[in-house]
Amino acid sequence: MIAIAIHGGAGTLRKSDMTPALERDYKLGLETALDAAYAILKKGGTSLDAVERAVFELENYPMFNAGKGSVFNSQGKHEMDASIMEGTQLRAGAVSGVSNIKNPVVLARAIMEKTEHVFLSGDGALKFAKQEGIAMEEDAYFYNEFRHQQWLEIKDGDSFQLDHSEKKFGTVGAVALCENGQLAAATSTGGMTNKKYGRVGDSPMIGAGTYANNRTCAISCTGHGELFIRSVVAYDISCLMEYKGLTLHEACNIVVYDKLVKIGGEGGLIAIDQGGNIEMPFNSEGMFRGSINSKGERTIMIYK
Amino acid sequence: MIAIAIHGGAGTLRKSDMTPALERDYKLGLETALDAAYAILKKGGTSLDAVERAVFELENYPMFNAGKGSVFNSQGKHEMDASIMEGTQLRAGAVSGVSNIKNPVVLARAIMEKTEHVFLSGDGALKFAKQEGIAMEEDAYFYNEFRHQQWLEIKDGDSFQLDHSEKKFGTVGAVALCENGQLAAATSTGGMTNKKYGRVGDSPMIGAGTYANNRTCAISCTGHGELFIRSVVAYDISCLMEYKGLTLHEACNIVVYDKLVKIGGEGGLIAIDQGGNIEMPFNSEGMFRGSINSKGERTIMIYK
Repeated sequence: MIAIAIHGGAGTLRKSDMTPALERDYKLGLETALDAAYAILKKGGTSLDAVERAVFELENYPMFNAGKGSVFNSQGKHEMDASIMEGTQLRAGAVSGVSNIKNPVVLARAIMEKTEHVFLSGDGALKFAKQEGIAMEEDAYFYNEFRHQQWLEIKDGDSFQLDHSEKKFGTVGAVALCENGQLAAATSTGGMTNKKYGRVGDSPMIGAGTYANNRTCAISCTGHGELFIRSVVAYDISCLMEYKGLTLHEACNIVVYDKLVKIGGEGGLIAIDQGGNIEMPFNSEGMFRGSINSKGERTIMIYK
Repeated sequence: MIAIAIHGGAGTLRKSDMTPALERDYKLGLETALDAAYAILKKGGTSLDAVERAVFELENYPMFNAGKGSVFNSQGKHEMDASIMEGTQLRAGAVSGVSNIKNPVVLARAIMEKTEHVFLSGDGALKFAKQEGIAMEEDAYFYNEFRHQQWLEIKDGDSFQLDHSEKKFGTVGAVALCENGQLAAATSTGGMTNKKYGRVGDSPMIGAGTYANNRTCAISCTGHGELFIRSVVAYDISCLMEYKGLTLHEACNIVVYDKLVKIGGEGGLIAIDQGGNIEMPFNSEGMFRGSINSKGERTIMIYK
C-alpha cells in the first residue's frame, strides 16, 4: 500500500481572487510534485525519498513560498526554513534562516543523515551546506517580480505579511506512506514578506510543523506558525492517536477545527497513517493540496 | 498552594569528580535561585515571574552553562538559547543563537509579551533586544578561565563537548506553581563547547525542552537535545497526562526511564502539576536540582 499527500500553503484563497490561468498554474505545480513523488513510491522507493522529492519540486516551482518562490524578508533577501522526519527510527533534520540554498529540504535531510544534530540555523547551517556540496543559487535565482513588488509595497512600514495575500500562509509540505509501511513528512517555507528579527515559524520545528511516527501518523502543517508552535500541532495529532486511541480523522478534526480555532490558529495540515488514510483539514478559506490515495485516486484542490 | 523546582543541568556528575568546595558552590547557586524565586511566589507573585527569576539567577551564576557561565562555541564566542511558557493562555517566547545578552530568559519573555512572534533567532533577535533595551554585556562578562581552558583543549579538533565533563548537559531551568493555580516553565543554555554550525538544541523549542499548561504540567528539560527534540519530550509528558490520564509521576517515569532510555536519550527534567506535585527524574548519573514543595520543604541535590 502506498499513498501521498502534499500542500502548497493555506489561507485566504478565494475563487473570486483567482483567474483561470493562475488556478491552472497552481494546480500544475501541485501535479508535478505529486506525480514525481508518487513515481518513487510506485517503484518501491521510501516515503522519505518521496516526501523529499515532492517538497523539492514545490521548492523549484516559483508560485509557492518555498525555495525559488520564497518571499522577500525585511533586508530584501530570502531566508528559508525546512524540516524532514521519518517515522521508523524517528530521525529528523531541520534548518532555519538560510539564504541561497536552492532546496532547503535537501539540506534538512543532509542534517538528519550526516550530522549528530537535528536542527542547524543561519550562517552555521550555510557553512555545513557548503561543506556538503548542497546546491546553492545566487540571489537572482530567487528573484521574482511579483514577490519583489509585494515587498516594495510594505518594506518601509513596520508591517509584515504572511504571504502575498492578506492572510496566506506560504509553506509547502508532503507526507507519504511507502510499501514497507514507513511514514515520512517534510515541510519547507520562505517565511513572511518583510520578515524581521530572525523570526522562526513552525516549519522547521519537529513536533510543531512536521512530525512522523510509524505507530501513528505523518504530518506537515501550514498556518499561523506562532499558534502552531504553542499548540505543538503535529505531535498533538500523533498523541491523540497513540494515547487516546483516536483515528487520524478524529484527531485531525479536533486539532484543526476545535483546538486551533479556539486560539485563532488559522491554517491547515496534511496527514497520513499506516493504513494509507489521508486527511487534509484546514480552517482557512483554502489550502493548495493534492493527494494520491491507496487506491491510486488523485485529487488536486484549492478551495473547500 | 505554591511550589517550585529548578535544575542546573544533568549528566555524568560523579561524587568522585567533585570536591566539597565545588559541591558547596553548585549548591549555593541553586539555593540562591530557588530562594529568590520562592520569595516571589510567597508574596503572591506569578509562576511566570518566579521561573523567570530563578533562571535569571542561574544565568548570573558563573558555574552553570547559561548566561554568564556559557561555554565557548567554535568561534570562541558565547551563543545562547532560552525559552519561557505560561500555562494559562499557552503564551510562549523563545530565542536561539544570541550573543552578549546578559539574561536570555528575559529576552525570551520580552519576545512572548512584546512581539507577535514566539521564536526569534540570531542577529534579528539581537536587534529586537537592543530596541527593547534588554541588558547586554561585553564578551569579557562571559569570559571564564575554566570554560576558556575547556575550549582551548578541543577547539582545533572536530569534536564538541556537551559541557565541560564528558557528558554533561549544561542547561538551567525552572518550573513553578503560583497561588492562583497557574503553571510556568523556563529553560536557558549556553550550548555546547566548541559548538559549530549554528546548532539549535531543545532548550528554545516549545514542546521539546519547555512546556507549560495549567491543565497538565510545566516542564523544563536538560539532556541530549537532539533526542529530546525527536521525542518532543516536554509535550509528551503533558499528553500522557491529558490523553491517557496518567499522573505526573507516571508520565515522567515513562518518558525519562523508558522512552528516552530506549533511544539513548540521556538527561532529565523537572516537572510540576497543579496539585503542586514535583518530579525531578533523570537517567544520567546526576542532575543539579532543587525544589521547595507545597509544604515548604526544600531539597537541593546533585546525585541520585
